[in-house]
Amino acid sequence: MSVTTASARPAIVLLSGGLDSATCLAIAKGEGQTPIYTMAFDYGQRHRHELTASKILAERYAVKEHRVVTIDLRVFGGSALTSDSAVPKDRNEAEMNAAVPITYVPARNTIFLSYALAWAEVLNVDDVYIGVNALDYSGYPDCRPEYIEAFEKMARLGTTRTGFTLRAPLQHQTKAQIIRRGTLLGVPYGLTHSCYDPPANGVACGHCDSCLLRKKGFAEAGVPDPTQYAT
Amino acid sequence: MSVTTASARPAIVLLSGGLDSATCLAIAKGEGQTPIYTMAFDYGQRHRHELTASKILAERYAVKEHRVVTIDLRVFGGSALTSDSAVPKDRNEAEMNAAVPITYVPARNTIFLSYALAWAEVLNVDDVYIGVNALDYSGYPDCRPEYIEAFEKMARLGTTRTGFTLRAPLQHQTKAQIIRRGTLLGVPYGLTHSCYDPPANGVACGHCDSCLLRKKGFAEAGVPDPTQYAT
Repeated sequence: MSVTTASARPAIVLLSGGLDSATCLAIAKGEGQTPIYTMAFDYGQRHRHELTASKILAERYAVKEHRVVTIDLRVFGGSALTSDSAVPKDRNEAEMNAAVPITYVPARNTIFLSYALAWAEVLNVDDVYIGVNALDYSGYPDCRPEYIEAFEKMARLGTTRTGFTLRAPLQHQTKAQIIRRGTLLGVPYGLTHSCYDPPANGVACGHCDSCLLRKKGFAEAGVPDPTQYAT
Repeated sequence: MSVTTASARPAIVLLSGGLDSATCLAIAKGEGQTPIYTMAFDYGQRHRHELTASKILAERYAVKEHRVVTIDLRVFGGSALTSDSAVPKDRNEAEMNAAVPITYVPARNTIFLSYALAWAEVLNVDDVYIGVNALDYSGYPDCRPEYIEAFEKMARLGTTRTGFTLRAPLQHQTKAQIIRRGTLLGVPYGLTHSCYDPPANGVACGHCDSCLLRKKGFAEAGVPDPTQYAT
């Protein structure tokens, strides 16, 4: 008896090393996408541990190729994630959702997805996974569903990949739902890294927006949080 | 008496150093955009003289800032413009238009425009000029009007620049029309560089698609071609 996997298609997964992208990778694998390629970006982010986490996750999932693209986003300035301004701490949800936060990196997802699109064209891959999330999204405009849809349309028109599909399986899920789903898929969350402002020893700060959303997500999911927080 | 310039808005012009982008810069200036910023990309292209031409043109037009973004597109391979494959020579128009040519760089305009978008966000600029051309375009999918429109829409949704406008003033013009328009605006075409495969001495090869379209354009426009061709 043979099992035909209708969805045995290659895919590229954007793998930042955070909780969402790791879950995305597990979902792509669970959906039968094969082979899987992963892409991470070195854009001078102060949370360098993300890149290490990304590499470790790619190895754990035995992806076909993990590629780190170096981007000099520092030239664009203006964001706490790549400059020396202070990362906001201990904000409540109203504050997080009030406006585009200073941790916003200009057009970040657009630049990342453009590189993924170029790689997709070289590899003859149509499916690109991105772990964006429209609910617990900290107010970034490039995480909204209408943006994802517009990028997909642009990509189909601008390349030879007329069947290009941008998959954002976490789009409408809360952080707690993502964690529950990932836990069922066996995602090793202890290997993921989300903190925007980790202390020198590589643990998570526990107070930036990303840490607060992560803590809340685990608490609401009723799943033990394997993250080591500084305080 | 004071003259109010309604269109005195800042703009970013993508300035490759070729004929089209130089004309675009002159058009932006002629439309009263001020100040003007220019952006060029170093992506390992074998036609390096373009970058020199771009810098010289930016100086000639006294732009506020000229920025060269380094992109490692060589990692994507697969294109004659960035690899060691031979650039096609002496092709007729039917051959040029038959299919996506091997000089196509995967998702090139999408990556370029993504960086321009990021810079636009930092500078608070809404207008980005790109010299794409849907007629004499050598078959690149990311030169088509529907692509330009889709990018603009995506950009508005994905950033804080909800009024982002992608200006492609050469979109529906032939090379001859572009050259006539630029000549009226005083574009120093002798400083521009289009060749895909220039010999070591920096003149144009005279036989690649870009040289052939350029020669034909000057001939049809009835404007003397200031370009130095090798043969």
